[in-house]
Amino acid sequence: MTTKPSIPTVSIIGLGNLGRALAGAFLDQGYRTTVWNRSPAKADDLVARGAHRAATVAEALAAGELVIVCVLDYDTVSRLLTPAADALRGRILLNLTSGTPEPARELAAWVAGQGADYLDGAVYAVPQTIGTADAFVLYSGSSAVFETYREQLDLLGAPTFVGTDPGLASLYDVALLSGMYGMFAGFFQSVAVADSARIKATDITALLVPWLNGAAAALPGFAAEIDSGDYATETSNLDINTVGLANMLTATKAQGIGVDLLTPLQTLFERQIAQGHGSASLSRAIESLRPPR
Amino acid sequence: MTTKPSIPTVSIIGLGNLGRALAGAFLDQGYRTTVWNRSPAKADDLVARGAHRAATVAEALAAGELVIVCVLDYDTVSRLLTPAADALRGRILLNLTSGTPEPARELAAWVAGQGADYLDGAVYAVPQTIGTADAFVLYSGSSAVFETYREQLDLLGAPTFVGTDPGLASLYDVALLSGMYGMFAGFFQSVAVADSARIKATDITALLVPWLNGAAAALPGFAAEIDSGDYATETSNLDINTVGLANMLTATKAQGIGVDLLTPLQTLFERQIAQGHGSASLSRAIESLRPPR
Repeated sequence: MTTKPSIPTVSIIGLGNLGRALAGAFLDQGYRTTVWNRSPAKADDLVARGAHRAATVAEALAAGELVIVCVLDYDTVSRLLTPAADALRGRILLNLTSGTPEPARELAAWVAGQGADYLDGAVYAVPQTIGTADAFVLYSGSSAVFETYREQLDLLGAPTFVGTDPGLASLYDVALLSGMYGMFAGFFQSVAVADSARIKATDITALLVPWLNGAAAALPGFAAEIDSGDYATETSNLDINTVGLANMLTATKAQGIGVDLLTPLQTLFERQIAQGHGSASLSRAIESLRPPR
Repeated sequence: MTTKPSIPTVSIIGLGNLGRALAGAFLDQGYRTTVWNRSPAKADDLVARGAHRAATVAEALAAGELVIVCVLDYDTVSRLLTPAADALRGRILLNLTSGTPEPARELAAWVAGQGADYLDGAVYAVPQTIGTADAFVLYSGSSAVFETYREQLDLLGAPTFVGTDPGLASLYDVALLSGMYGMFAGFFQSVAVADSARIKATDITALLVPWLNGAAAALPGFAAEIDSGDYATETSNLDINTVGLANMLTATKAQGIGVDLLTPLQTLFERQIAQGHGSASLSRAIESLRPPR
């Protein structure tokens, strides 16, 4: 066989919400799809739709040119693949398991050692949005795999290749999830303040969501200031924000609510002010987080 | 005079970005508009557009049936109004100064003692969006004032009356700004992680903004869980999020970036898990913030 078949076979290892949604998307497009899951019953509905159920991980690896792994964590990936390593040769391993950069790099090196290609992906979607324009996936590792299997990757969501370092997709993932968890922290603080005045969580959230969407529109401007290093501003400087935040935290404590979630941000602001940057843009707070170079 | 004139006179005290935008909106609609600012030159362009420049706060109070105050803080409001208290009688004082509930209540009581009506407002807008559908304003205090001056309030943005307690608009403000500052904290953390891998702030932010908008869509579901007290979930529970967040924080530290902004959220999660709620929804973290009742 000298050319790649135009329709590769696909195996999916791990049938959580993501794995099941992906398997369904490949089945819908007529791909020969093999599935494996620790609890085999999770595959029942996919088998009814035409999927082949692999009895072992090695069988799943043997059956699919493109092998997609989406399990709980990297330890699980290693535990599943190590005994089946002989079946990896010549395969394309697309790892969508959530993790961090260093284990992704180690896995990529090990996979390469087995004679297989490695692509790492971080999926931004809920099961309902897999394979729609609302999902997006960041990839890192083999750019050749990214190009060759682009048609299949399109089924997972809008694909973006972020670099050949296999750890990069996970690095982006850590960055984007950090942003999400910060927003969640703000949500909990907001709901707690509202709750202290007997305002329902749904009522404050109905106002909060459009307000956050509006405030998010300010972030590209902050990012441009950070990239340029020019923090001059005529509007929202660190002095004003620090006074405002301090007043808010005082009012929050007066409502009987703790302020642990937001005091670290106040500390970032104060560190910049102590260095004489009170009239600089709020965005200069990033300088308090940067390691010394 | 037995009926309110159909077109009330308007005075605006404080010509920062908000005050100037509001004065412009009233002038555009043909209102007789009086303006006062500590540095009088800030009124020059408004005077050129037809505004009357008051020489003193008392003169501004005398000239306007509806007096809108938007200055730096409540101390400034008191300092400006106290010596002009005689001119307050019969006036409608709409205070848009940002602050916290207790000073708003104290100001409302003092204003009532001078024979004037009080309405407190919190504006969610940038100067460019004042008077558009993108701006919204929360009001608390006199419901009669809110009803009577609805046509004028509409010029400031979409109005919502949140209650007769004059401190409520500020309470909502503290809640909504808490949400915003949480999101900003997440943004700084995200940019710092990206920066550690030489990814530009603008590049990560271009991905972060749509991701945050998508994640914000999950908040109403969390809020419904919080209001119902039913934290049963089949998807994103506290155990999964706590493991994921711990891995992220480890990876962040490996990049040389501090994790102070997100560890307090981790602590909320862990407190719920320690109480046996690891399989409950992420939203149950709110119970770690609530004061004992």
